[in-house]
Amino acid sequence: MQLIDGKAVAAHIKAEIAANVQQLVRDGGRPPCLAAVLVGHDGASETYVAGKVRTCAELGFRSSLIRFDSNVSESELLECIDRLNNDGGIDGFIVQLPLPKHISEAKILEAIDYRKDVDGFHPVNIGRMAAGLPCFLPATPAGVLELLTYYNIETSGKHCVVIGRSRIVGKPIAMLMMQKAYPGDCTVTVCHSRSNNLREMCLSADIIIVALGVPHFLKDDMVKPGAVVIDVGLTRLPSSVTATGYKLAGDVDFSRVAPLCSYITPVPGGVGPMTIVSLMKNTWKAAARTIYP
Amino acid sequence: MQLIDGKAVAAHIKAEIAANVQQLVRDGGRPPCLAAVLVGHDGASETYVAGKVRTCAELGFRSSLIRFDSNVSESELLECIDRLNNDGGIDGFIVQLPLPKHISEAKILEAIDYRKDVDGFHPVNIGRMAAGLPCFLPATPAGVLELLTYYNIETSGKHCVVIGRSRIVGKPIAMLMMQKAYPGDCTVTVCHSRSNNLREMCLSADIIIVALGVPHFLKDDMVKPGAVVIDVGLTRLPSSVTATGYKLAGDVDFSRVAPLCSYITPVPGGVGPMTIVSLMKNTWKAAARTIYP
Repeated sequence: MQLIDGKAVAAHIKAEIAANVQQLVRDGGRPPCLAAVLVGHDGASETYVAGKVRTCAELGFRSSLIRFDSNVSESELLECIDRLNNDGGIDGFIVQLPLPKHISEAKILEAIDYRKDVDGFHPVNIGRMAAGLPCFLPATPAGVLELLTYYNIETSGKHCVVIGRSRIVGKPIAMLMMQKAYPGDCTVTVCHSRSNNLREMCLSADIIIVALGVPHFLKDDMVKPGAVVIDVGLTRLPSSVTATGYKLAGDVDFSRVAPLCSYITPVPGGVGPMTIVSLMKNTWKAAARTIYP
Repeated sequence: MQLIDGKAVAAHIKAEIAANVQQLVRDGGRPPCLAAVLVGHDGASETYVAGKVRTCAELGFRSSLIRFDSNVSESELLECIDRLNNDGGIDGFIVQLPLPKHISEAKILEAIDYRKDVDGFHPVNIGRMAAGLPCFLPATPAGVLELLTYYNIETSGKHCVVIGRSRIVGKPIAMLMMQKAYPGDCTVTVCHSRSNNLREMCLSADIIIVALGVPHFLKDDMVKPGAVVIDVGLTRLPSSVTATGYKLAGDVDFSRVAPLCSYITPVPGGVGPMTIVSLMKNTWKAAARTIYP
C-alpha cells in the first residue's frame, strides 16, 4: 500500500508556482493577485479563507480579503462582484461558500466574470470543462487529477466509482475521469444517496473517489483488493484532545480500508492540501492569461 | 415488451406546442421564429435541416434557412451569428453540425448568444444543466427524458448505463440521469470505446442508453431481462431496396434484444422524432422567454 502524500505534492507544485512568480517579478511584472469574499463568520469558512490568504503570501501572490456581515444584501454582494470584475489589479477572485440562505448562490456565481472565476464554478467554466475545452477547473477535482498524475496511476479503461454527485466535486470529477485524456478514459459510475447497489459498484471499482461528507462511510467490505481510494471527505468532528476542539475525518474508514489498497489518500494530508494549490494554480493562470486572453 | 413509440409521443407534444402558438397568435403575438444555418451540402445534414424547417411549418413557427458554401470562412460565419444574435425577429437559431474542418466548432458554438442557443450546446447552457439550473437542454437528451416521463418509467435508484461519451449526447444524458429529479436519481455509468468491462456493466443495467453510432452494437448477451433500452444510434446504411438508397440503423440489435426488454425504442420512430420536438420546445421557450428573460 502506497500512501498518497498530498502535502508533499502540494509543496512541490507550490515551489514551482513560487519560482514562476519570482521570475515574473524579476522581469518587472506585477505579482498575481487573488481576492476572497467572505460573508459571515462560519468557523470552517474562516479557516479555509485564512489558508488561502496564507498560501498567497507563501507563493508571493498578493491577496485581498473582503468581509461582509451575514446580513449583507444580495445586491450589495453583486455590487462588490461587479467592482472586482472591473478591477484590473485583481486577476481572480472567489466567493467563499456557503452563503446565507437569503442570497442565491447561483446568481452570485454567475455574476463573476468567468475569466476571473478561479474557483471554476461559473457555468462557462463548467460547460467548457464538460466539452473538454481550456477552462478554470474546480479546485478539488483538479487536485485529485494532480495526485493521480503525480503518482502515475493508470486510469485508461479502469472502472472509477465516484460517490457523491455535488456540483463542486462529484459531478466535475466524473466528467473529468471520463474525458479522452490522462487522467481519464475511465468507465465512470456516479453513486449517491439514492443508489441501490452502491456496495456492489464499489466492489467492482479499480478507483474509488468518495465525496459524500459522511465520516468513515467507505468500509473495507466495499473495496476490492488493489483498488485506488481517493478520500475527498473533510468533516469536523468534536474532539476533546485537540487544541481546536475538533478533528478532521474523511469519508473512508482508513485503518481498515488502507491495507487493501494499492494507493490511498489520508485525511488530513491527502486531497485537502491539493485543493488550495489548485486554486493558486488557477490564479497563476488567470494572471498569466493562459486560458482566457 | 412495450415498444416506446417516439412518433406518437412527438405528435402529442407537437399538438400541444401548436395549440400554444395558435393561442399566442390569436392574442396578437408574433409566432416563434427559428433560424438554421447550414454549411455545405452533406446529405444527412440536409435531411435534418429540412425536417426542422418542415416541423416549424407544422407548428405555426416561422423559420429561416441560411446557407453557406462549404468554403465559407470562419469570420463570415461569425458575422452571420452576430447578425442572428442581434436580430429581434429571431428567437433561437442553430448551426447544423458537423462544420467543415477549417472552422472551429467550439468557437462558433460559443459565439451564439446563449439565450438563443436552442440546441443547448453553448457552455453556459451545458454548465447550467450540470448545476441543475434552468437552461436549454440539448435536444436528444431532452427527448430521451420526455420518453421516460411519458411512459412513466421508474428511474430512482436504478442503474443506468450510458454507452458513448459525446459532448452532444452521452455526457449530457449522464448528467441528467444522475440529477436529483425525475427522470433521474439513477446510479449512472458512462462506458465508451476505452471501457474494459462494457459487457458486465450493461448486464447489470436497469436502463441502457446507447449513443455510440455503431449499428447493432448492443447484443442480446449484454442485456439483463426486464431492462429498458433506449437507442440513440442513427446510422445510414446503404440499401438497394429503399428509394433513398439507404436505411437507418440503430445501435441495438433490435430483433434479438427487444424480446428481453421491458421497454425499448425502435429505430426509426424512437428517439429520432423526439429530437426535433425538443428543439421546437426550446424554440417555444426562447420565444416565450421562460428560461432567460
